[in-house]
Amino acid sequence: MDLDPDPDLPPTGRFVGPEHRFPLRVYFEDTDAAGIVYYANYLRFMERARSDMLRAAGVDQFAALGAGEGVYAVAEAHVRYRTPARLDDALVVRSELKAIRAAACVIHQRVTRGAVLCAEADITAAFISPEGRPKRQPRAWVEKFEGLLA
Amino acid sequence: MDLDPDPDLPPTGRFVGPEHRFPLRVYFEDTDAAGIVYYANYLRFMERARSDMLRAAGVDQFAALGAGEGVYAVAEAHVRYRTPARLDDALVVRSELKAIRAAACVIHQRVTRGAVLCAEADITAAFISPEGRPKRQPRAWVEKFEGLLA
Amino acid sequence: MDLDPDPDLPPTGRFVGPEHRFPLRVYFEDTDAAGIVYYANYLRFMERARSDMLRAAGVDQFAALGAGEGVYAVAEAHVRYRTPARLDDALVVRSELKAIRAAACVIHQRVTRGAVLCAEADITAAFISPEGRPKRQPRAWVEKFEGLLA
Amino acid sequence: MDLDPDPDLPPTGRFVGPEHRFPLRVYFEDTDAAGIVYYANYLRFMERARSDMLRAAGVDQFAALGAGEGVYAVAEAHVRYRTPARLDDALVVRSELKAIRAAACVIHQRVTRGAVLCAEADITAAFISPEGRPKRQPRAWVEKFEGLLA
Repeated sequence: MDLDPDPDLPPTGRFVGPEHRFPLRVYFEDTDAAGIVYYANYLRFMERARSDMLRAAGVDQFAALGAGEGVYAVAEAHVRYRTPARLDDALVVRSELKAIRAAACVIHQRVTRGAVLCAEADITAAFISPEGRPKRQPRAWVEKFEGLLA
Repeated sequence: MDLDPDPDLPPTGRFVGPEHRFPLRVYFEDTDAAGIVYYANYLRFMERARSDMLRAAGVDQFAALGAGEGVYAVAEAHVRYRTPARLDDALVVRSELKAIRAAACVIHQRVTRGAVLCAEADITAAFISPEGRPKRQPRAWVEKFEGLLA
Repeated sequence: MDLDPDPDLPPTGRFVGPEHRFPLRVYFEDTDAAGIVYYANYLRFMERARSDMLRAAGVDQFAALGAGEGVYAVAEAHVRYRTPARLDDALVVRSELKAIRAAACVIHQRVTRGAVLCAEADITAAFISPEGRPKRQPRAWVEKFEGLLA
Repeated sequence: MDLDPDPDLPPTGRFVGPEHRFPLRVYFEDTDAAGIVYYANYLRFMERARSDMLRAAGVDQFAALGAGEGVYAVAEAHVRYRTPARLDDALVVRSELKAIRAAACVIHQRVTRGAVLCAEADITAAFISPEGRPKRQPRAWVEKFEGLLA
């Protein structure tokens, strides 16, 4: 039985095979006086998508943060900007897990508008302790991530 | 026949009677080091909801902006912060049109988490020419707005 | 002897009588596709100025936050937008303490570009405990604030 | 004669040899619920510093944007995050021009807190026409940039 989702719950992305798709709209807050999406804001879009991907994979990163176990922090972000996105554009953030290391994951993320590639990035997200030191990712999470590798 | 929406299209809000409801999720970008949603970011949430409300009402504000006709700019915002929203909260922005003037609209907006009121605001959105002067709102828009008054 | 400030230290505002003045520049990040400063960002400017005003008054709010004593949270913000600020504008945030209550302060803030008033706001900043409850402001702070009343 | 700067003018950075130094303070708006500066916000800091570096080099990018000649857009950003910056930190963005191409510049930028490296990035800033196509940088600008190469 396929119940309609509660219309008052926030929207979520979904996996299509190994690719996680997260749609979003460009609002005034995302643009700048050059009429395009401000370059730092693609990183905001990508972080929303990664948080949603973790949720969809069954990983509760916020419980781990609240319990003082650790939190993901981006260690490296390599972004290529291809075609500017603009106000009111309907975008999709497409994320694929590329590698799992002891204390980090590597994710490839593309922001697309229809068939057009707006930006893409390789993101290394490191798991760190509350003191800011690299830390092994929880074993149960790694097992879930292994199921997501393309 | 009720077709499923395209899952790769961005989510939208909807009207329930005169109230427009726009759900959203709190991400890291929205919070600050005090562990709560940064106070300016409620205005970002409210603007997303107002843009969506215009779209749902059949008003294409972006076409008007592109054609050099004018754009809405907030003239007054009176915000009361009630209960802090936090990371990962599922919120709903509830917007009601309260008054229509020649060159402005007044909207009451509440940000809620379940039954809890996080913040509420009275927003006056003025229509202005590209030179920044107050301007009558398009007649066709005003007619649509009149149908939204509670 | 009046030593030059270290040029690698961040700039600060200063008091001119009871008025605290905090200059800032408008960057791309502050603007939107309408070519003006996005309305929520005036609240960011005002918060920078309030933090700097506390520092200039000798109040270490960050030590209090770190020690779990409490933090200021805005309870009410009433903003009137007068003249849009634009990319590269040189602005000054002018802040005056208007009232001191047991658990809150009221500050009037104006954002100006030369003689032009861009926006002004009445801000009520409430002191809250880590659990989010209103809490008396530290006695030593209140004594300092009393010296700032116009 | 060395006049004091107008205290109501926004602060600027300065060149120390080929290195442009731009100091800034971390405010609540820059941090997130993990207690550190949100990763996208280093790109905001770096853009402020690049805009200031252009001004210090005598290049008026805003006049060019207003005249419809073109604007810089980041084509590539490769950021490595080293040590988290935190609320109230005094940071310096250190920028060096590394390469000048026909339609782009490459800048290396480091964000430091005292002797600690918080983040560093290689940024390719492309000059683009209002239609978004790569365009030769103005000849007079290139001559100024050549004087900045380390």
